[in-house]
Amino acid sequence: MLLLAWIAFITPIVAQDNVDLEMMYRIKTEGIQKSQIQDLSFHLTDFIGPRLSGSTNLRNARAWTSRKFQEWGLSNVKIDAWGEFGRGWNVKKSYIAMKAPYYAQIIGYPKAWTDGTAGQVSSEVVLLEISTDADLEKYRGKIRGKIVMAPANLTLNPAFEAEAKRWTEEELEQRKEISTGVQPSRYTPEALAQMRAQRELDQKLATFLLEEGVALRLTGTRGSFGTVFHTRAGSYSNDKKPTVPEIEIAAEHYGRIYRLIKNGKPVTVEAEVQVEWLDDDYKGYNVLAEIPGTDKTLKSEIVMLGAHMDSWHAGTGANDNAAGVVVMMEAIRILKALGVQPKRTIRIAIWGEEEQGLHGSRGYVQQYVADRTKKEKKAEWDKISAYYNLDNGSGKIRGIYVEGNDMVVPIFEKWLEPFHELGANTVTRRNTGSTDHVAFDAVGVPGFQFIQDPIDYGKGYHTNMDLYERMQFADMTQAAVIIAALVYNTAQRDEKLPRKPWN
Amino acid sequence: MLLLAWIAFITPIVAQDNVDLEMMYRIKTEGIQKSQIQDLSFHLTDFIGPRLSGSTNLRNARAWTSRKFQEWGLSNVKIDAWGEFGRGWNVKKSYIAMKAPYYAQIIGYPKAWTDGTAGQVSSEVVLLEISTDADLEKYRGKIRGKIVMAPANLTLNPAFEAEAKRWTEEELEQRKEISTGVQPSRYTPEALAQMRAQRELDQKLATFLLEEGVALRLTGTRGSFGTVFHTRAGSYSNDKKPTVPEIEIAAEHYGRIYRLIKNGKPVTVEAEVQVEWLDDDYKGYNVLAEIPGTDKTLKSEIVMLGAHMDSWHAGTGANDNAAGVVVMMEAIRILKALGVQPKRTIRIAIWGEEEQGLHGSRGYVQQYVADRTKKEKKAEWDKISAYYNLDNGSGKIRGIYVEGNDMVVPIFEKWLEPFHELGANTVTRRNTGSTDHVAFDAVGVPGFQFIQDPIDYGKGYHTNMDLYERMQFADMTQAAVIIAALVYNTAQRDEKLPRKPWN
Repeated sequence: MLLLAWIAFITPIVAQDNVDLEMMYRIKTEGIQKSQIQDLSFHLTDFIGPRLSGSTNLRNARAWTSRKFQEWGLSNVKIDAWGEFGRGWNVKKSYIAMKAPYYAQIIGYPKAWTDGTAGQVSSEVVLLEISTDADLEKYRGKIRGKIVMAPANLTLNPAFEAEAKRWTEEELEQRKEISTGVQPSRYTPEALAQMRAQRELDQKLATFLLEEGVALRLTGTRGSFGTVFHTRAGSYSNDKKPTVPEIEIAAEHYGRIYRLIKNGKPVTVEAEVQVEWLDDDYKGYNVLAEIPGTDKTLKSEIVMLGAHMDSWHAGTGANDNAAGVVVMMEAIRILKALGVQPKRTIRIAIWGEEEQGLHGSRGYVQQYVADRTKKEKKAEWDKISAYYNLDNGSGKIRGIYVEGNDMVVPIFEKWLEPFHELGANTVTRRNTGSTDHVAFDAVGVPGFQFIQDPIDYGKGYHTNMDLYERMQFADMTQAAVIIAALVYNTAQRDEKLPRKPWN
Repeated sequence: MLLLAWIAFITPIVAQDNVDLEMMYRIKTEGIQKSQIQDLSFHLTDFIGPRLSGSTNLRNARAWTSRKFQEWGLSNVKIDAWGEFGRGWNVKKSYIAMKAPYYAQIIGYPKAWTDGTAGQVSSEVVLLEISTDADLEKYRGKIRGKIVMAPANLTLNPAFEAEAKRWTEEELEQRKEISTGVQPSRYTPEALAQMRAQRELDQKLATFLLEEGVALRLTGTRGSFGTVFHTRAGSYSNDKKPTVPEIEIAAEHYGRIYRLIKNGKPVTVEAEVQVEWLDDDYKGYNVLAEIPGTDKTLKSEIVMLGAHMDSWHAGTGANDNAAGVVVMMEAIRILKALGVQPKRTIRIAIWGEEEQGLHGSRGYVQQYVADRTKKEKKAEWDKISAYYNLDNGSGKIRGIYVEGNDMVVPIFEKWLEPFHELGANTVTRRNTGSTDHVAFDAVGVPGFQFIQDPIDYGKGYHTNMDLYERMQFADMTQAAVIIAALVYNTAQRDEKLPRKPWN
């Protein structure tokens, strides 16, 4: 009751947020009738390919994106170094199969930034059963040139729930609820100590395997039915040490090798990994472009929209996050095509190196917006009205997370009104984490991410199967229209969007 | 109402079908407390591997199964040739990847009985757009040593329904309904003519590609997210001609190559397939074993249970049909372990070569039961009371299909009573097709297949992902118990099960 009364009280101050319905109509028409979503998606996924941070393909993707921005007539297009990332890495060949007890292909991918094998390697697989430092000694002197693996985690349950889904109205309503209780720590001190001990043991094991001259390490991974999730091995830093080559393989194939060895049946695996290291440029980059503002006083202010370009390496990063990049590109294309003359400057930022820690967006913020640790504001801190981000796949927009910023709730509720019949009607005070809007929110600049229908996102992101076929073009068309509208409204609003205080 | 009255009328004649509850209890106890399901499943899938008809692994599987039968003390264990199958074929190596526009692994498998490539082959992929004979000429002289493919079928929809499911009581009830209308032919004469024309064109194309010296043909296939369905290329017959090597690849990977070429971006693929042909034995085999009957007059009569051992070649044929084989092995193991002295002889048959046309079971029937085309009865026609088959994955038994045999309905309803709380309570008059019970039913000998929960069967059978992890051991334990019970009841019944007339 209190809350409702309070919203009623602040509603009048947002009268300025009545939307320009004619512009909304024009945005919808351009976005739906002249969509370039499918063509952009093809180019970024099939043609450019996977875009691991530092890889040749990511460089190609930056070049392609900036060419597109120039083609469309955007201003101040630049590929902007945010700082130092590390070495580039490309897979040149990858093959793995079981040779005995019978020949069987294995679905497996080199972990990111792993070293290659010494040509084709082949050996009986040694099962390493290590739970303490002392266990390492059991294998000393016995694993040179061998392929090794740890025991498997065997549980793979059938999927009694649909992999693909859309949020129901009821679920969206639940998504608005805010817990006011203090959340208990997720881990007990004992659990934390155990995790720390495990991490230390893992590091010792990695060093041990390298010293012992292991030929290849096999790792199991999440996923099933041929879908393989990715992680990374070793480091991409300039001064990285060599690592044991590592391939992560489909859970079922890993389980088979494990069960065979445990039952006393020797398993022989053959494999080859060739990789290429790039040492000509250690920097990381974002691609920036603008529609310049036209209002005499407001044009120095900025509305940003963006998404990350980098992906994991065995799919083509379709839902994570070619989808976001394509939607943001399309949103600014729509505005440019309509010849919009915004009051504030509209800037798109296609981030690099998100997957390793939001490096692109954090680097940008550090350089231009604010130093988070020193709590120092920089030139753009006061200029950016809002940053809009998309990074939850290609499902359509159902609403927006406002990161606890109560003051923007009535504004977004108003702005989403023309899009209710397209399925977007939920404004939640909740936080959502783990992608580039966080870099802005962390320094008190409004950064927003959208509620999207999950479709196949959860099943496919960070996997070998995050491919063109996962992308929902009709949904992405809706998302581009809505984002273009919010960006436009933000650019035209009398005031910048209200902010949470930044200490 | 009529139907109910009729069932009430025939109920008295099945008084003999009251079940021996103590024996049911003993079967359940042995099956549940001493289950060997998991161990047998491991051996048949992980350890033996895929069991394509004619392959070395299928030979190993027959040997292993017959050793198990001997170990358990079954009688008259034999590996029984049913006739001639054809050549054996094993994959010795398989590798495929995209080299340009960037390196990317491809999930793909040689089609069954394809020839190998001439070492590692590599070429730009040529897209063959052929819809008439005349189109072939466009490619004459231009595809020697090339890798070729046809246009892709691009639709891959997200799965908004769960892949795994159990039947609801309502769905089971619906499964009892029988349509009395005449089914219209599935195809119009025009559609049939078109299919025939397409088949002729396909054959011409295959010959053309061979004559033109194509290096490798790529084919798309059903499935998504890394799951690849299998088909076969060429022939396994003794006098087979050479064929163009053929690899079927994941739908997404096939789609990517197609889209790139259609958009004018050349694609290079490299691949290697090594296969081995076996010409030392063209025969096909079943594995047979018995618990001999003990009743003076009835012991010459037989109750049979069985499942097919052969599978497709890139998974390990777990749900299709190691599951059926293991359940049937376990069912007879339970009866043997209990020291059952059945009136009739109980015979298990583990069929070979089912996937290419029920060859094992049809060969057995032809040899011992009846000649279907000549309508000639043979020695066992009058002796076999019933044949029980399992071939719909590893989901538990929910009921039985009686193939229109109204006379057995009240018998099975009685016999399933002790298993209602295990989920098996549906007797449907419906037919179910396409596996080995059909060979018996076709000559008028009662052959039955069970209603099983589908779990992951539809998604995984005939795929690279039909692996150990798909098998539901608790469900298989239930199935083995129920089948042991039905087999026992059939062996002890005063009369053979009632039959449909065979003209």
